[in-house]
Amino acid sequence: MLKDNYKSGYSLNQIYYKDESIYNLEINNIFHKHWLFAGHTSQLQDIGDYFLYEFADESIIIILNKNNQIKAHINVCRHRGSKICLDKEGNKNLLTCPYHAWSYDLDGALISARDMPSDFKFEHNNLMSVHLELIGGFIFISLSKKPLSLNNFKSDLNETLELFGLDSLKLAMHKSFSIPANWKLAVENYNECYHCVPSHKEFSQIHMMGTDNKIFNIRKDEYLKLNKNNPKYAQFNCFYDNAEPGQEGYQYDRNPLKPGICSGTLNGEAAAPLLGKLTEYDYGASELMIGPLMFFLIYDDHIVGYRFTPLSVDNCVCDIFWMVRDDAVENIDYNINNLTWLWNTTTVADTTIIMNNQKGINSKFYSPGRLSLMENFQKNFLDWYIKTINSNKGDYIE
Amino acid sequence: MLKDNYKSGYSLNQIYYKDESIYNLEINNIFHKHWLFAGHTSQLQDIGDYFLYEFADESIIIILNKNNQIKAHINVCRHRGSKICLDKEGNKNLLTCPYHAWSYDLDGALISARDMPSDFKFEHNNLMSVHLELIGGFIFISLSKKPLSLNNFKSDLNETLELFGLDSLKLAMHKSFSIPANWKLAVENYNECYHCVPSHKEFSQIHMMGTDNKIFNIRKDEYLKLNKNNPKYAQFNCFYDNAEPGQEGYQYDRNPLKPGICSGTLNGEAAAPLLGKLTEYDYGASELMIGPLMFFLIYDDHIVGYRFTPLSVDNCVCDIFWMVRDDAVENIDYNINNLTWLWNTTTVADTTIIMNNQKGINSKFYSPGRLSLMENFQKNFLDWYIKTINSNKGDYIE
Amino acid sequence: MLKDNYKSGYSLNQIYYKDESIYNLEINNIFHKHWLFAGHTSQLQDIGDYFLYEFADESIIIILNKNNQIKAHINVCRHRGSKICLDKEGNKNLLTCPYHAWSYDLDGALISARDMPSDFKFEHNNLMSVHLELIGGFIFISLSKKPLSLNNFKSDLNETLELFGLDSLKLAMHKSFSIPANWKLAVENYNECYHCVPSHKEFSQIHMMGTDNKIFNIRKDEYLKLNKNNPKYAQFNCFYDNAEPGQEGYQYDRNPLKPGICSGTLNGEAAAPLLGKLTEYDYGASELMIGPLMFFLIYDDHIVGYRFTPLSVDNCVCDIFWMVRDDAVENIDYNINNLTWLWNTTTVADTTIIMNNQKGINSKFYSPGRLSLMENFQKNFLDWYIKTINSNKGDYIE
Repeated sequence: MLKDNYKSGYSLNQIYYKDESIYNLEINNIFHKHWLFAGHTSQLQDIGDYFLYEFADESIIIILNKNNQIKAHINVCRHRGSKICLDKEGNKNLLTCPYHAWSYDLDGALISARDMPSDFKFEHNNLMSVHLELIGGFIFISLSKKPLSLNNFKSDLNETLELFGLDSLKLAMHKSFSIPANWKLAVENYNECYHCVPSHKEFSQIHMMGTDNKIFNIRKDEYLKLNKNNPKYAQFNCFYDNAEPGQEGYQYDRNPLKPGICSGTLNGEAAAPLLGKLTEYDYGASELMIGPLMFFLIYDDHIVGYRFTPLSVDNCVCDIFWMVRDDAVENIDYNINNLTWLWNTTTVADTTIIMNNQKGINSKFYSPGRLSLMENFQKNFLDWYIKTINSNKGDYIE
Repeated sequence: MLKDNYKSGYSLNQIYYKDESIYNLEINNIFHKHWLFAGHTSQLQDIGDYFLYEFADESIIIILNKNNQIKAHINVCRHRGSKICLDKEGNKNLLTCPYHAWSYDLDGALISARDMPSDFKFEHNNLMSVHLELIGGFIFISLSKKPLSLNNFKSDLNETLELFGLDSLKLAMHKSFSIPANWKLAVENYNECYHCVPSHKEFSQIHMMGTDNKIFNIRKDEYLKLNKNNPKYAQFNCFYDNAEPGQEGYQYDRNPLKPGICSGTLNGEAAAPLLGKLTEYDYGASELMIGPLMFFLIYDDHIVGYRFTPLSVDNCVCDIFWMVRDDAVENIDYNINNLTWLWNTTTVADTTIIMNNQKGINSKFYSPGRLSLMENFQKNFLDWYIKTINSNKGDYIE
Repeated sequence: MLKDNYKSGYSLNQIYYKDESIYNLEINNIFHKHWLFAGHTSQLQDIGDYFLYEFADESIIIILNKNNQIKAHINVCRHRGSKICLDKEGNKNLLTCPYHAWSYDLDGALISARDMPSDFKFEHNNLMSVHLELIGGFIFISLSKKPLSLNNFKSDLNETLELFGLDSLKLAMHKSFSIPANWKLAVENYNECYHCVPSHKEFSQIHMMGTDNKIFNIRKDEYLKLNKNNPKYAQFNCFYDNAEPGQEGYQYDRNPLKPGICSGTLNGEAAAPLLGKLTEYDYGASELMIGPLMFFLIYDDHIVGYRFTPLSVDNCVCDIFWMVRDDAVENIDYNINNLTWLWNTTTVADTTIIMNNQKGINSKFYSPGRLSLMENFQKNFLDWYIKTINSNKGDYIE
């Protein structure tokens, strides 16, 4: 029914950006179904270290258990529903509810609850657990009962990610940007570079992608020809509608930067020590997408992760994670301002752009507009989105 | 159906001040149908000067084009719906969208859009334009496809407005008052002077209108008798239900001020040079209404315009425009504090009054109350309002 | 229908804490039907003294009339619905509406309204009055047309309340705590002491009630055996579902404090002079409940009143009233910090607890949990609540 509203190659109708019931469908069919990026293993050093990953009405505890395994639990007490961990991060020996002191071990098993009726079963009252997978040090969770498989992703990209040393990174910086707009406007903004030249002069002095499509494609062909048969230059377009049924979508591609640019910094100079097995700069950067909501930009010396999460129908958050080699030392091997300058500046600008996009769309006079040739990836997102929210309800745990 | 709720001569039922779907009907049947006061030509001096007129979810660009004509465009890009002009006022050579740089000329024609598919038609993607009419220097717009006619108004009031030099005014001051209440409570407040004596001692020392009805009518009869056959003292009551079908409503009337009062100032002394062709004070002031939402108070030396616009079902804005002769010089011919004192003071008080009216109406115990004899104009407004929101949906552009 | 959602002995389903239409049922079936605690006679000393009792969208004027009687009026003008008294408390000779100056005497009779049509009836336009009953100096109001009877309560507890000198108290302190949660979570929190030991160490050093059920019951039996046949130790459990049809519910019970504790103060020492006819401390405190929303804790030397009122579906207020003998002198006979320390500290902690309970319940993963043996009184509240909101609409005045 909603499909009838949509014409591929055009932006969405106003209703998709304002309607509460569509928003609820999205939460069920997208956020409770797909893999979500929760954070990085380097955030959890000692047994009992935890952090919260929160979105919409959900709060998930990501914690290191006594066997040095990372576990994910729903942050809701099984007694009367209080939040258990109140601080965004910390260390806990036990997960004890601050209300009535029901206590769970780090694996979520209920181990203490006073004065319960004699037929009360402890084993039926463990914290709800959430599927979790590590990709290198990246922590992904799924709120679905039967999560999509990550196997294709892993086998396709294993070699590539090894090259970048994905299991020996650390989180150097994390920033959250609050955006007063529907979350899709933020994802659409990330998904196209038609706006890069008019809106982001900083980005445009580093990246070629905002350049006219033809010029960019010629340069990219040259770049890839030079580097055949190297997993760094692999291409996988199994994203959105191209994902195999039952498999999580993903995409990998490497693009040239502007001539002579090593990394995403003010002067294009190095940001940090080279990642993994790399021995030299190749003046390019990779785009990696895992699931529909998580984008990584892989420079030769650092990785920038972009995550979009909704808070309500008209508010969302963009989180940015800057990651470097785990043996790099701050202020010696890298400088935070230099490392974060490009995407901090770009995202501050996008926050205003996205807010004004929502404001215009709220007008009764807004109607879906034609997409340009440079908005093809966004078109793929929209095609997939319409199909997804018209599909059956997500099988999230309930 | 809603009509059944209403009894003429009584205030409205609670639902009209709280219900979202009634609010949406109002936006469609009133705000998207009638002529709205956008501002004054003196706000646009140079080619490319613009200001925004915004209400509810709408933003309209009022701009001076290269032929020195004033145009009104919907402030929404035809590509993906971003707002184009972000500042409330400014000057633009081109209307360039800050998102992807689609550019429109000052007449709203799309003149630049990069990388579009070959079948994309520029001429189908101009900014949506809005009907605009000038009455003297007053700028009125209509969001309707087929606006109501202003012809009767113009022919009836032509001579009168010429007398006041309506085409040689300038905006001396503009102030916005945010009111946490439904917009109708603000209009009702403006439409009756039953509250003037208890609530507005400043007003009551200048104007006679708050005085007991009988005394006021005797004084008014004397005043009008002295001044027969002069267009300054014309009377037109073609407002609300008295409007001819297809014509916008209007009303004009002149009332005596308190004895010896020249103008709406602290001591009743002059505020500014006499308007238009006037050669002396006559100790009166005219009430002029154009459409259901715009009221002008015409003193002999300045005009005060009152505009009411909704932001949401329970918030609105009252804008006041103070206008003087266009050749008057600030601090020589007029002083802003003296000019604005009366209606600034009165409106600050009304903001609190209207807020407390809404609070009381929110109670389950509120029921419509009987109107006094001095609330007849408000009664006309309410009778018309009920008829209007029960009529067919406004034919606004969509 | 809603009943089907509920399993006695478990917490409520999420919908009861988030749904607007259920909230509206609650306002009608509970807040507009039961007796509500408005305040204390000691707040009204002189003729014309008034205070407002406000909740949800309602505002009620509690005022001392010329015959030294306390009256309760709806704070909504019968003309166009403005609030009449704007300040939370004050003194008025007449209740004059600030909008159009309609004036009512202290009994709510309309005595002045200018310029009304000739058939206007003053006597049909008095302020709506509200049922009011005094219990000692406690002021209770009911918004129902046919309030529940308080007769059973009065006859059962007459002697007991006389002992505590309920008609010779004064309000020593009143504090409001804003809680960002559904009002039921605040009432549930008050209704159980399962959380006292983990959450309230201050409470637990004074009161025995948080102690393990078995130990507490043994101690209570001993305590009551010592004191048979004294109205101070009466027990009435006519609350919630135990209330007789047509009668307001109530409950009275006396419990031992920790050994050697006289009163609810930092060191358990006296807070103020002994109440009423009491001649010594008995190291206990009484729980008194009148209606479903008002709880009094009676120490030998002061009374703490707890009131819960909703502001919206997800916001409520907890008001605390500290009362002492009316002849006690501040800073000589009692000290405010000492008097208020225990319940101020406890309620500040509860505000956070209740807020985090709401946050957890908002999760899609929350499901009703099993109640402990110590949450029996809360279970009674929930059983009654489900029955009540499924019953017919409250017969409130309208």
